[in-house]
Amino acid sequence: MSSKNLTEVIIDGKIYELSGYESEEYLQKVASYINGKIGEVKKDVRFRRMSPEVQRTLVELNIADDFYKAKKQVDLLEAELDNKDQQLYNLKCELIATQIRLKASEKEVTNMQKEIVDYQKEIIRFETELRERSKK
Amino acid sequence: MSSKNLTEVIIDGKIYELSGYESEEYLQKVASYINGKIGEVKKDVRFRRMSPEVQRTLVELNIADDFYKAKKQVDLLEAELDNKDQQLYNLKCELIATQIRLKASEKEVTNMQKEIVDYQKEIIRFETELRERSKK
Repeated sequence: MSSKNLTEVIIDGKIYELSGYESEEYLQKVASYINGKIGEVKKDVRFRRMSPEVQRTLVELNIADDFYKAKKQVDLLEAELDNKDQQLYNLKCELIATQIRLKASEKEVTNMQKEIVDYQKEIIRFETELRERSKK
Repeated sequence: MSSKNLTEVIIDGKIYELSGYESEEYLQKVASYINGKIGEVKKDVRFRRMSPEVQRTLVELNIADDFYKAKKQVDLLEAELDNKDQQLYNLKCELIATQIRLKASEKEVTNMQKEIVDYQKEIIRFETELRERSKK
């Protein structure tokens, strides 16, 4: 297990020292994303005059909305994956059934080729016999 | 397009009136999720004595972390879907190639069956001729 990191991030103009197993790069990305959300709320004329508490609640609502949208996408993608797995299963079954039919057909071709050679030999024997009889 | 809804939610003990196209059910789910996150931070001995502002920043960090985790899952699932699509494409190509070989083999079987019938008829003719000659 990797050791805990101490990372300083700036959120809404204040420095926070975060301790955890996440990389500094990740925590800076998350902080930057939160600052973006805070900036959106602060510059919106509808919310500019509201108390900081209400503004932070709006920020939380916006981030949670992003989370639920991503979660919905996860659900949709998982359903799509299940569907693809079913398609893959059906295709594999169809492929195996076709391969079995092909093998049987190719075996039949081989057997018939032998049968044809036997008939051809028999015909040559008949022809020879008829020729021999004609000579007599 | 559906009309805007007005929904009252309670976040951190305060009532907020939210206006938007989201359903009341969805907004209550999001509010309940945020309250859960606020509750986690408030009951944590490490954060209990911190200012409400710091606590809300921690809440934002936790929600944003959930968002990035879900986003990562979306990326992984999309990569997995691409991989399944490639597998499906390869399987379809293999199936088509096998179906073409099967069709060719089955055609060969039909042709050989006709050839065999012709040989069998020829042999019957020879046998008949030989029998006729033997009678003479």
